[in-house]
Amino acid sequence: MQASVSVITLGTTDLVRSRRFYSEGFGWTPVHTSDVIDFYQLNGVVLGLFLTPLLEEDMNRTGLVTPGAFALAHNVRTAAEVIPLMDRLAVAGGRITRPADAPPHGGLRGYVADPDDHAWEIAWNPAFAMDAEGNVTFGL
Amino acid sequence: MQASVSVITLGTTDLVRSRRFYSEGFGWTPVHTSDVIDFYQLNGVVLGLFLTPLLEEDMNRTGLVTPGAFALAHNVRTAAEVIPLMDRLAVAGGRITRPADAPPHGGLRGYVADPDDHAWEIAWNPAFAMDAEGNVTFGL
Repeated sequence: MQASVSVITLGTTDLVRSRRFYSEGFGWTPVHTSDVIDFYQLNGVVLGLFLTPLLEEDMNRTGLVTPGAFALAHNVRTAAEVIPLMDRLAVAGGRITRPADAPPHGGLRGYVADPDDHAWEIAWNPAFAMDAEGNVTFGL
Repeated sequence: MQASVSVITLGTTDLVRSRRFYSEGFGWTPVHTSDVIDFYQLNGVVLGLFLTPLLEEDMNRTGLVTPGAFALAHNVRTAAEVIPLMDRLAVAGGRITRPADAPPHGGLRGYVADPDDHAWEIAWNPAFAMDAEGNVTFGL
């Protein structure tokens, strides 16, 4: 079975607020927007921001809560990009939960929660190679 | 700013149990294992399974809860693959929260929760092109 992830769907309670974080903060342009779901094309993966009650309906369950026990990471190419991007995300409605510092494995990273409290790690990790499209390869 | 996701980290309370789901259920081979974190190389994205208390420490926050308001999707290439994969995931410690059926946008999909209640959608979505490496492109 091919090891792959195709879509990451994050529940949101306010799409306009989410759009500000992802479009103005990260600077990403959605490939599709609507009143209930926005999509962003990432590196071979699609990111969806979906109204949480509709995500629950699609999943056939209720009681989704935040902050969930997960984090997404957006790696950047140089250490100098980490703090400015975290600051932009905070201006666009995010909340810095860990200011940038050096993790035990090296590099530089901090965490920003999106407006729905989903955690994004902003990281420069020299051990993980990154190609021109933003695809990363695990390394130690 | 390049639109990309580099790492998805899921909190786990039992790495051995998680390994069974991801290695036996999905059939993925980890690129690194340890007593606290396992890594899988996906399509340009690294998946980490990390002990939740250590993820909280890394994030500098406490109180991570499940089920989080998010879902990951693993797309397959044919409708015929959806139900057998969901069944294998259930045998490997997952829990089917929505049996496979046709979503409003077409295709076939169901949801399986991993042993820590993280949701995976198993989907055949003919609107999303998929290349040989498993990278998907958004489509309607």
